[in-house]
Amino acid sequence: MVERGGDGARAVAAAVYPRAGSAHTVGITGAPGAGKSTLTNALCSVIRAAGTAVAVLAVDPSSPFTGGAILGDRVRMSDHTLDDGVFIRSMATRGHLGGLSLATPEAVRVLDAVGYRWVVVETVGVGQVEVEVAGAADTTVVVLNPGWGDAVQANKAGLMEIADVFVINKADRVGAAETRRDLEGMLAMGAGRGRVPAIVETVATEAVGLDELWAAVRAHRDALVSTGELEARRAERAREELREVVRARLLEQAAARCTGPAWDEAVRSVADHHLDPWAAVDRLLA
Amino acid sequence: MVERGGDGARAVAAAVYPRAGSAHTVGITGAPGAGKSTLTNALCSVIRAAGTAVAVLAVDPSSPFTGGAILGDRVRMSDHTLDDGVFIRSMATRGHLGGLSLATPEAVRVLDAVGYRWVVVETVGVGQVEVEVAGAADTTVVVLNPGWGDAVQANKAGLMEIADVFVINKADRVGAAETRRDLEGMLAMGAGRGRVPAIVETVATEAVGLDELWAAVRAHRDALVSTGELEARRAERAREELREVVRARLLEQAAARCTGPAWDEAVRSVADHHLDPWAAVDRLLA
Repeated sequence: MVERGGDGARAVAAAVYPRAGSAHTVGITGAPGAGKSTLTNALCSVIRAAGTAVAVLAVDPSSPFTGGAILGDRVRMSDHTLDDGVFIRSMATRGHLGGLSLATPEAVRVLDAVGYRWVVVETVGVGQVEVEVAGAADTTVVVLNPGWGDAVQANKAGLMEIADVFVINKADRVGAAETRRDLEGMLAMGAGRGRVPAIVETVATEAVGLDELWAAVRAHRDALVSTGELEARRAERAREELREVVRARLLEQAAARCTGPAWDEAVRSVADHHLDPWAAVDRLLA
Repeated sequence: MVERGGDGARAVAAAVYPRAGSAHTVGITGAPGAGKSTLTNALCSVIRAAGTAVAVLAVDPSSPFTGGAILGDRVRMSDHTLDDGVFIRSMATRGHLGGLSLATPEAVRVLDAVGYRWVVVETVGVGQVEVEVAGAADTTVVVLNPGWGDAVQANKAGLMEIADVFVINKADRVGAAETRRDLEGMLAMGAGRGRVPAIVETVATEAVGLDELWAAVRAHRDALVSTGELEARRAERAREELREVVRARLLEQAAARCTGPAWDEAVRSVADHHLDPWAAVDRLLA
């Protein structure tokens, strides 16, 4: 219902909101192929071994053309399919007016309200919306690989700024030490948000380094709680989400404007190059 | 001015719109690392050798946090820096209300109006907005590599659906023939938009296959023109752009609602978990 949006999603939001707020959310992001799904899978095993239930939202960018998500992540996560203590959902946002930015926190609150104390949100770290979604977690883990240092990687700056914990995955490959040095250099120049992010090396396919990652995530959570930063971060997120909802409501009104004779007239004037789009819309909304 | 948006961009749009419409736009997209910039660079050389001027817009996803683009593409395109017949711009959209979706067609029209008959728009093919931007060209080129067949690549479906021409770049690597077979299989099942996309193999770093790519792009353009499909496609794009402008105008109004005592009250009620975001906004907008 949350993915579909509309009245159903709003009823869910109203029921769930008062019960949410106890879960700690962990964003896991990085470039395609960095090993995010495998790492998420391995992290779930560690969390489960600690006796804790965990929920995973795998946020696939929906195809803008079919509205369909590619459910690949479910395949990779199949280690946990028989474990009731792990809930996994590949998320699509067909029809949700606010897109991923609104649907994701709503879905997280459902999982939170039903009792999961850890909710992991995995997104691909390319694309404005996707990076924003990853950054809207309590603790954001950015997954890199040895050799990422190539100076012209898309979106590196965006990823650097949302990281609370860096993971150098596939750390058994050549270049892990250099990648760590690069990272430390960038952090020394002030990258990251607030406190200096931890750097953890993993080989997710071999389950190497996962205890260290889990410890780094918990340490970050504890620091957020003890300094009061968690409250401040969540208040800022509530403000930002409210802005998104105002936008979504006004966009509903926009849809009503894009139909009828005045709309057809506006389209014609633009297609004929009589008016530029902004001028045509000014006339339409006047 | 177009990248900054606002009144300046609108004045430019009004001046430019009546003069635009002659350029053919070519979108080039694909996963990070597929070789899009190198391919674009090599394609420019071929177009230049034919005696034609060409403009390139390299659309980098802006960091959502700093508003800064990473100007890597400019570096790779330096073959053409001394050639007046090639105009290259790494595009950022700091401040443009409509983001990439509106700023890109506006920038294309500026290049069109000043006389470029070919405008190449290069975007990273991951992320909803970026794929949409790539698909909004007259001819969209999707760049793949041998081995892309991995069943769980993000956004493959979206890319398949916007392709007018497929390029298998790095075709000297193992797996090029298989990749072509995979592609042909998917196309036989009805992927792609309308006419069956051409498949071209290239090694962009060695300038291999570029004449074939240029021929495929021109053949697609000629087919669009002779069937009247070009007109229909552009009319549909004008309609979609107009919808975006209506949204952008209403979003300006949204900003005005997100300030003042009523707004502060709404934020407080959500942060205290008294109201869910949708209920708070209903109260705010009532």
